[in-house]
Amino acid sequence: MTETVPRPTLEAVAALAGVSRATASRVVNGGDGVREPLVERVRRAVEELGYVPNQAARSLVTRRHDAVAVVVAEPETRVFADPFFALQLRGISKELTAHDNQLVLLLTEGRDDHARVGRYLAGGHVDGALVFSLHLDDPLPGLIRRAGVPTVFGGRPGWNDGERGDVVYVDSDNRGGARDAVRHLVGLGRGRVAHITGPLDQTSAADRLDGYRDVMADADPRLIVPGDFTPAGGERAMRTLLDHCPDVDAVFAANDLTAAGALRVLREQGRRVPDDVAVIGFDDMLPVAEQTDPPLTTVRQDIEGMGGLMARLLLRGHGDRVTAQAAGEVAGAGAAEEAGGGPSGVVLPTTLVRRASA
Amino acid sequence: MTETVPRPTLEAVAALAGVSRATASRVVNGGDGVREPLVERVRRAVEELGYVPNQAARSLVTRRHDAVAVVVAEPETRVFADPFFALQLRGISKELTAHDNQLVLLLTEGRDDHARVGRYLAGGHVDGALVFSLHLDDPLPGLIRRAGVPTVFGGRPGWNDGERGDVVYVDSDNRGGARDAVRHLVGLGRGRVAHITGPLDQTSAADRLDGYRDVMADADPRLIVPGDFTPAGGERAMRTLLDHCPDVDAVFAANDLTAAGALRVLREQGRRVPDDVAVIGFDDMLPVAEQTDPPLTTVRQDIEGMGGLMARLLLRGHGDRVTAQAAGEVAGAGAAEEAGGGPSGVVLPTTLVRRASA
Repeated sequence: MTETVPRPTLEAVAALAGVSRATASRVVNGGDGVREPLVERVRRAVEELGYVPNQAARSLVTRRHDAVAVVVAEPETRVFADPFFALQLRGISKELTAHDNQLVLLLTEGRDDHARVGRYLAGGHVDGALVFSLHLDDPLPGLIRRAGVPTVFGGRPGWNDGERGDVVYVDSDNRGGARDAVRHLVGLGRGRVAHITGPLDQTSAADRLDGYRDVMADADPRLIVPGDFTPAGGERAMRTLLDHCPDVDAVFAANDLTAAGALRVLREQGRRVPDDVAVIGFDDMLPVAEQTDPPLTTVRQDIEGMGGLMARLLLRGHGDRVTAQAAGEVAGAGAAEEAGGGPSGVVLPTTLVRRASA
Repeated sequence: MTETVPRPTLEAVAALAGVSRATASRVVNGGDGVREPLVERVRRAVEELGYVPNQAARSLVTRRHDAVAVVVAEPETRVFADPFFALQLRGISKELTAHDNQLVLLLTEGRDDHARVGRYLAGGHVDGALVFSLHLDDPLPGLIRRAGVPTVFGGRPGWNDGERGDVVYVDSDNRGGARDAVRHLVGLGRGRVAHITGPLDQTSAADRLDGYRDVMADADPRLIVPGDFTPAGGERAMRTLLDHCPDVDAVFAANDLTAAGALRVLREQGRRVPDDVAVIGFDDMLPVAEQTDPPLTTVRQDIEGMGGLMARLLLRGHGDRVTAQAAGEVAGAGAAEEAGGGPSGVVLPTTLVRRASA
C-alpha cells in the first residue's frame, strides 16, 4: 500500500503566521480583504510548512468541497427551454447559497454524455448530487451509485434493480393530483375526458396516467394520447384527439406546457374553452398558467420548494448517505412517506388551482 | 517540505490485472460495459497496488480534469430569464461535448457569491473558465487571476489595472454595429434619434453608446435614456422618452429585449412603428426579434458562435495561458484584432438585419 504522509494543516499555518485560522483560510483560498503584511506572513508560513494550498489535495483529507452538483438528465437545450428546470434550480440555488455551497450545474448535449457526468461526479469535485428528470433506461443512476456521492433524486426513480433502498427522492403526489383533476372534469359533467400524457419513461408522467385511470377506468383508449411535456407535443396530441375523438369534451394535460399547446389548437379549430372542451394542466407554472387563453385551471405542485427541499436533504446528509429518516425530519411530519423496501421518498401534496379553462 | 510518495499508475493496475489500460480506466472511472470477471480482476489489482481511483488525487499529478467552468456574472434568475445566455451556452456546450469536456456551470445568487466561485475555480476542479457578463467593479477577474486557471472572457473586460495583457476575450463589434444602426435611422430621414442604453458598467453597453455618439455627436442629451438589457427596462425608458421628448422619431435600443419593451409602450401609446417611430435593436435574438410587433430590425451578432469560439480558444490553450496568437489562429484571418498592450481580443463583425420596425 502507498504510505500517506500527514499533510500540514491550515491550523499549523495560522499558528506559525500568528493569525487566526479564518485569516489564513482567506489568504490560502485567494479571497480578498486581508491586509498585505498578514498575507505575506501567511504565505511564508505556507512555504515553510510545505502546506498544499490546493483544494484537490485538501479534499483528499477532508473530502469536502462545499459544492453540490445538479444533473438534469435532459439536453441543455431542454434545460433552458422548459421553465420547470429554472424553477427547481431557483429553489436549489437559494438553499445552497444560504449554506455557502457552490451550485455546480453539469450540462450535457444528451444521454451519450452521461458517462462523462459520472466521471466528474466520481472525480472528487462535489460533496453530493441532485439529479432530475431521469428516464427509465438512463445509465445515470448506476454511474452515480458507483461514483459514491450522496444523491437526492428529483422525482421517484423508476428503476427496479434490487438496490432501491439506497435511493432518496423528493416528489409530488402526481397520481393524487391527476385524480383530483380528472374528478373535477367529471364533476363538471364531462363524459369524454381525454388525457395527453407526458413521456411515459418518466415516473411523473406514468403516475399521472395512473391517476387518470383511477377515475376513468373504462375510458375509450383513443382518449389517451401521448405527449412529451412540450407545447409542440401538446399541439400534436390535441390534433390527433380532435381527429379521432371529435366529441371530446375535456382534456387533462400532463403538464401546463402541454395544455398551452392544446389550447392553441382548440382555439385555432374554433372550439370554445371551457364551454366545448374543458382543459386542466399540471404544475401551475407561472407565468405560463396565467397567460394562456383562457387562463389555465391546473394542479399546483411547489416546484421551487421541491428544489429547496432536495438541497436541504442533501446538505443534512453531507458526507453520509441521505437517509429516509432525515428526509422525514427535514420535510416535517405529514409529508414523509416510506415505501417498505423501496426507495425512500418525500412526497409533497398537490392542490387544484381553478382558473377559467375548467 | 512534505515528501510525496510516487503513486501507482493506472498502467500498473492494467498490467497486474492483465487487461488493457482502457478497460482498467473504464472500471476505475465507474463506466459501464466491462464484463464482471474483468471488473473483479481490476478491482483486486487496484487494492493490491493501493491505486487511488480518485480524480482529486490523480489531478494532483496530471492537473487535467477534462472539465471547463462557465461563470455568468449575473444572478441565476437572470441567466435563465435572458435567452442570450442560453444561446452562448449552446455554442459552448456543443464545442465542449465535441471534445469530451464537461461543461460545469457555476451559478450564483449574486455578486456576494463570487468569492465562492473563485474558491471553486482555485480548487482544482476544472481546466479553465469561460466568463461572461462582467461588470466594471466585479471582484471576479481578480479572483480568477489568483485562481490561476486559464480563462477566456466573453465580451471585452473593462478594467484597467496594468495586468490587461494576460486577458483574452471574444467580443462583437459593438461600436461598429451601433454606428450602422444609427446611420440607418438617419438615412431614413429621422432627425430625433434616441438611444436606450444597456447597463453602462458593461463594455458592450458602453461601446454601443459610443457608436451612437459617433453618428449623433450633437444629440439632445435627453435622447439618451438608461436601460438594463431587460424588457421592463425598455418599457420604463420608452415612457421616459415619450414624456421628455414627445417628438422622438427613432429609437436605437441597446438590445432586442429592450426594443421589445419599447415597442410595447409605443403600441400602447398609439405610436405607429415605423411610421411615427422607427426602432432598431441589437442581437438578432430569435425568436424574440421575429415575434415582436412589428418584427424587429436589428444588429445581428453571432451569439452561439461567440460561445463556441470561446470554448475553442480555451481548449486550444488547455493548461497554458491562452494567447492572442492562438486566438487569431482559431478565429481565422480577418476576425482577429490585437490592441497593442491591452487585452487580446477576437472581435467578430456584426450585420444589420432589416425587418419591419425600421
